[in-house]
Amino acid sequence: MSITVVGSLAFDTVRTPFGERKRMLGGAATHFALAASFFDEVRPVGPVGDDFGEAELAVLSTRGTIVDDVERVAGGKTFFWEGEYGWDLNSRETIDTQLNVFEHFQPKLSPAAQACDVLFLANIQPDLQLDVLDACDGPRFTAVDSMNLWIDIARDSLVKVIERVDAVTLNDAELRQLTGKPNLITAAREILSWGPSAVVAKQGEYGAALVTGEGFFALPAYPLETVVDPTGAGDSFAGGFVGWLARNSAGTPSDSELRQAMAYGTAIASYNVEEFGTERVARLTIDEVHERVSEIQRLTHFTVEALQ
Amino acid sequence: MSITVVGSLAFDTVRTPFGERKRMLGGAATHFALAASFFDEVRPVGPVGDDFGEAELAVLSTRGTIVDDVERVAGGKTFFWEGEYGWDLNSRETIDTQLNVFEHFQPKLSPAAQACDVLFLANIQPDLQLDVLDACDGPRFTAVDSMNLWIDIARDSLVKVIERVDAVTLNDAELRQLTGKPNLITAAREILSWGPSAVVAKQGEYGAALVTGEGFFALPAYPLETVVDPTGAGDSFAGGFVGWLARNSAGTPSDSELRQAMAYGTAIASYNVEEFGTERVARLTIDEVHERVSEIQRLTHFTVEALQ
Repeated sequence: MSITVVGSLAFDTVRTPFGERKRMLGGAATHFALAASFFDEVRPVGPVGDDFGEAELAVLSTRGTIVDDVERVAGGKTFFWEGEYGWDLNSRETIDTQLNVFEHFQPKLSPAAQACDVLFLANIQPDLQLDVLDACDGPRFTAVDSMNLWIDIARDSLVKVIERVDAVTLNDAELRQLTGKPNLITAAREILSWGPSAVVAKQGEYGAALVTGEGFFALPAYPLETVVDPTGAGDSFAGGFVGWLARNSAGTPSDSELRQAMAYGTAIASYNVEEFGTERVARLTIDEVHERVSEIQRLTHFTVEALQ
Repeated sequence: MSITVVGSLAFDTVRTPFGERKRMLGGAATHFALAASFFDEVRPVGPVGDDFGEAELAVLSTRGTIVDDVERVAGGKTFFWEGEYGWDLNSRETIDTQLNVFEHFQPKLSPAAQACDVLFLANIQPDLQLDVLDACDGPRFTAVDSMNLWIDIARDSLVKVIERVDAVTLNDAELRQLTGKPNLITAAREILSWGPSAVVAKQGEYGAALVTGEGFFALPAYPLETVVDPTGAGDSFAGGFVGWLARNSAGTPSDSELRQAMAYGTAIASYNVEEFGTERVARLTIDEVHERVSEIQRLTHFTVEALQ
């Protein structure tokens, strides 16, 4: 059993009200892999430059992640993002984006990566996501993430990707933009009609919602008094969500399985934002994850004692 | 057992993507009373003008609400609000506000209203809320709502109100503004330190969160494919929440009771937004409310089958 994730490996410079970190390890595939590695063997596929060293590979290898599909571009520089978060961490401004080796990235999957049981297409150009789908040997479960940029400039290709995957993770605004539907439930059901069996709406500090053919489910974010750095929360969530399903669900995930997977995604994402970058999740233990999932269960539970 | 609510009785002109209604019955006390009337005898206290007729009083009297404390100001005009909602209903613009009889409103409570068991101070000037607290004979449970305007221009008085009540209902932005704390949990705990035992953070389409000394709870909004008019959702929520507690909780509400009350508030608020103004809740039945509470329970439930 293994999970392949195709996406960015990056250096991030991040300023939040709690401080600043320069050129720390980041990227969607990195955050996804660190989260999913609790559940299964993970193979991140993505390009890095000469500046991506042994220290970064060591963090990426946490909990057995296989880094053989990390493509080293000789003479290249790793993707770089710089951003700053506002007072309440709900807004962020991109200060600099340098695509570097990502500009001409063409995914090349090893036979082992192609033979994955589960595939996560992190946020990259949708035509490359289609290439990856073509390259894989029919994974049992596939999920895709994307962003407003690709809805703007490559919507047709993104729709083709979505038609071929089992689950979609987007934020509320992206779901509305992609479908042109102002209502979140209607937007999610429209996407279900294209093919996927599950749509996850990522809602930042409000948590995440799940829409399937069977119904609706929502979980709040785990309540933290201090959120240090929200970068990578969505990818950590996806890693916990997809990772849990890879390990625990045999066929098409049931609603009950998807709900548990949402809880694991929520738990790991909440640890991710407690410190900068990968710092917290790199040293996180599965016991801590289980503990937080139990807390999330308590936080969302209520009993109707007597209907009067 | 009875509930007194002091707040606005109004005419609202509302435009949403689903249509327009001119001068329909509205106001915080109206929406609160219609929701709370499922659980207990409600007495709304607020001023109206000559334009507030028998038809409006009839709706306000739904399910036994006592309208004796509705103050008719001879020669006056009822408070009027006009607003327009955006595409996805998450933004609204106020087009016109006419205070009319509300401009010189000084609450006058009948002995029966003063003798209430439960008091809800809907959003009015905080010094008037203090007058109402002074006028009442020590209700068992008190809750307050407010808005950004009063935090801007009458914060000291609002803090005095909050120090004297059991529960506070505000939206996320107001909780942050009132406390100067960017983190919602920290903001809510700051308010708990002033005296109340419960803080409810209203979160619009994302539902509502509860912070108490014991912990945290959150409920998503009930998922609707069509939201016709969000006006009054917060006051309907408060009416269901406070009403349920009035009927079912004897002393200081436990966390379990507060969670059930949140579910009833969420259920009634979701009906409120299905149609314009008071249309839906005026003809709502308690069986429909119970049914939706059960659905909300199903929508938020998950079981962790095996920790692996």
